[in-house]
Amino acid sequence: MARIGIIGSEGRMGQAIAAALATAGETLSGGIDKGGDVEALAKDSDVLIDFSSPHALEANLDAAVAAGIPIVVGTTGLEERHHWLCDAAAENTAVLQTGNTSLGVTLLAHLVREAAQRLGDDWDIEIVETHHRMKVDAPSGTALLLGEAAATGRNIALADNSERGRDGITGKRGTGTIGFASLRGGTVAGDHTVHFLADNERIALSHLAENRTIFAKGAVRAAQWLLGKPKGRYTMPEVLGL
Amino acid sequence: MARIGIIGSEGRMGQAIAAALATAGETLSGGIDKGGDVEALAKDSDVLIDFSSPHALEANLDAAVAAGIPIVVGTTGLEERHHWLCDAAAENTAVLQTGNTSLGVTLLAHLVREAAQRLGDDWDIEIVETHHRMKVDAPSGTALLLGEAAATGRNIALADNSERGRDGITGKRGTGTIGFASLRGGTVAGDHTVHFLADNERIALSHLAENRTIFAKGAVRAAQWLLGKPKGRYTMPEVLGL
Amino acid sequence: MARIGIIGSEGRMGQAIAAALATAGETLSGGIDKGGDVEALAKDSDVLIDFSSPHALEANLDAAVAAGIPIVVGTTGLEERHHWLCDAAAENTAVLQTGNTSLGVTLLAHLVREAAQRLGDDWDIEIVETHHRMKVDAPSGTALLLGEAAATGRNIALADNSERGRDGITGKRGTGTIGFASLRGGTVAGDHTVHFLADNERIALSHLAENRTIFAKGAVRAAQWLLGKPKGRYTMPEVLGL
Amino acid sequence: MARIGIIGSEGRMGQAIAAALATAGETLSGGIDKGGDVEALAKDSDVLIDFSSPHALEANLDAAVAAGIPIVVGTTGLEERHHWLCDAAAENTAVLQTGNTSLGVTLLAHLVREAAQRLGDDWDIEIVETHHRMKVDAPSGTALLLGEAAATGRNIALADNSERGRDGITGKRGTGTIGFASLRGGTVAGDHTVHFLADNERIALSHLAENRTIFAKGAVRAAQWLLGKPKGRYTMPEVLGL
Repeated sequence: MARIGIIGSEGRMGQAIAAALATAGETLSGGIDKGGDVEALAKDSDVLIDFSSPHALEANLDAAVAAGIPIVVGTTGLEERHHWLCDAAAENTAVLQTGNTSLGVTLLAHLVREAAQRLGDDWDIEIVETHHRMKVDAPSGTALLLGEAAATGRNIALADNSERGRDGITGKRGTGTIGFASLRGGTVAGDHTVHFLADNERIALSHLAENRTIFAKGAVRAAQWLLGKPKGRYTMPEVLGL
Repeated sequence: MARIGIIGSEGRMGQAIAAALATAGETLSGGIDKGGDVEALAKDSDVLIDFSSPHALEANLDAAVAAGIPIVVGTTGLEERHHWLCDAAAENTAVLQTGNTSLGVTLLAHLVREAAQRLGDDWDIEIVETHHRMKVDAPSGTALLLGEAAATGRNIALADNSERGRDGITGKRGTGTIGFASLRGGTVAGDHTVHFLADNERIALSHLAENRTIFAKGAVRAAQWLLGKPKGRYTMPEVLGL
Repeated sequence: MARIGIIGSEGRMGQAIAAALATAGETLSGGIDKGGDVEALAKDSDVLIDFSSPHALEANLDAAVAAGIPIVVGTTGLEERHHWLCDAAAENTAVLQTGNTSLGVTLLAHLVREAAQRLGDDWDIEIVETHHRMKVDAPSGTALLLGEAAATGRNIALADNSERGRDGITGKRGTGTIGFASLRGGTVAGDHTVHFLADNERIALSHLAENRTIFAKGAVRAAQWLLGKPKGRYTMPEVLGL
Repeated sequence: MARIGIIGSEGRMGQAIAAALATAGETLSGGIDKGGDVEALAKDSDVLIDFSSPHALEANLDAAVAAGIPIVVGTTGLEERHHWLCDAAAENTAVLQTGNTSLGVTLLAHLVREAAQRLGDDWDIEIVETHHRMKVDAPSGTALLLGEAAATGRNIALADNSERGRDGITGKRGTGTIGFASLRGGTVAGDHTVHFLADNERIALSHLAENRTIFAKGAVRAAQWLLGKPKGRYTMPEVLGL
């Protein structure tokens, strides 16, 4: 039974993680938010889960290193320098940083890469996602993550091969490109489908989140997996053994 | 057993209609293309089906009127003046003009209008379509036809309430708008789905064309239905009794 | 602002309805469970919602009649004699009894009936539903409700025209039949799709419940609609004006 | 440019293969049917494709061995002794036998096995397929092939862990089982979806055949791949490098 500390405990994800801990049979060592004492939290914990803010990242990583415990970083909006901070901390403790803690999405990305690698570019790739009406950006971060998986499988750069925002006279589809489309409405927690479309046949690989608890569950699973790992930087696929 | 004449008989649709006639137990009275004698064809026919070109429309309508037979106009790319020509011909014979001869799509549009009318604007409407990789424009004409059906049901103007080409920072979804998204790939003959997305529940109404024969079949059905109708202008929904 | 009384207030639906009342801006007049005083509750309420048990139905209807207020009956497992009780009570007050309070499902059933009526029996009808792994019966009550809607549209008896549990050597599909298939797994709150399958084209009409709050919301909406209605027996489609 | 001989050339698949050869830039060396001279055909060919009948299999394999050329066997309805014949022939030439020549289905089966292996049995597996109204058995051979792939990934025996023909009082779903459901209607060439359903999230992996040409194309691709391979027995996954 591990003692897990939550940074950003009052946020939507922090609360969901606290609920997920109980289900997973783990102990909540404590939770802090802006202004809280992360060093004290780290001393009382076996592992930290951070869903706070990029501004707090450096102090959080320092506390994990000082206490000699691993840390899961699920904070979004990271920039390049935040990744450097993660790299630096990973020289002293185990750090798992990810933009999506869902185990299902992690597996889907693996399958998408595999499919993209095996199927030639006579299979057009199209990614469509649906999210609730309040979401302000498109495509979703997860759609882009799936696009990266496809591009990796194809050994191409996503940035140079994307078709986004199709509307009006587009001309015929570019061979080897990866298309994105975004639907918005209702309270959809997140649907993602990657289509592979060839002459006369189609493959579709999809994930549907019924609600956001899966992200909390995946974060807890990542924390459990990270316990006792040597220093270094880790990713979600490793949690699933991919 | 009706004698049906095809204008534009060498085109993809013309050939498909000739094949559909046999299946429907009707007789092909003949077919013409650019330069053919439409008056002679009209004299030998009980009804005409026109899938030729906007330029030929006036002569084709004149021939139908002169012969006193009805005409189905499935030609695409019509402009406002072509619609006036149809209206004028309809004062003397039965004219059914449509941008989509599929019976399934015609029914779907009816259901979409019905749903849009019954559901308040707390149900967000999103239309997504998929077509083959060679299609050069987006959204498809059928997607727009379905959007018009939804807008009619809501009693709003589609042009003022569309969200198209979502990409980047879009802000949250506008209440009461109708979204469009287009996927392209493979040899897809045409998939269309109209989503209605509310708090915690969703309705989806969709049509899938396995191939293009359904458009030919619908044109023949329209021609059969039009036989013996009084002069006037007709639409596809009337063929289904909608 | 109506005072709404809940019978079966500790059950899963009862609790959901209490939550839905607040969202809808209505007042909870009180809630009772087994052994509670339904007459007292009725006196303090403008309308009752009953999600208790068939055994309690007679007393609940009597209390509504005695207090002169309408009642929504969402209790499942009713037998023929329970329907007689509803009919009898409806001679003195407004009674709305239904097996499914979702507004989305109610509309879907309306669209299914409409489609089945318009499309000939060269359009095969197949209904597939998915529910969570704990559900013990198949097909779902909602799938059967949609089947009834299709059969009504076709003017046939569902019982004589169902194909269920397809497995092994089935022979070719019977013309005009309605097929049912059931998937079970995970925590699915309820997906239902009605397919209409013809030569070379397909229509699908579907509903997805993200969770069970929609049933509570629909029950409250039904109660609001029922307020002030004359005595008589009512149905969910009437709430949507169908 | 290889010379490809078709056994069963007048059948639906034989004709489709002849058409696919042209598209693939290969040469049709000839085609035979019941009573034709398979030895002569083998002498004029670089590789054979057999879509004839189990009764003809032995003679066809013998002809391939005698001519020293590889053979693709796509004939269905094979029994155990036919597999022994393939094994015996494979000691002298290259033999690829398969029940499904579609490249898309072959890849899908690979992804299903991968997913089943990575996801624990808290992910329920459900396989649903749709085929045209004339199909007389359920589930489809491809659905069973996908079920085998899932069972292999889970390291269980499919026969002991299937739930088929769900109807009536079924009790709750068995942990670790694989469910099957079959829809029938219209002219559907073949839709297959494998669902993985967990708490609050779902993954679906699907294949849709627009028509049957993909099976011919896959057979030709298998024949091309088999050219020059050493003696031995091969499978479709190897064609895709899986």
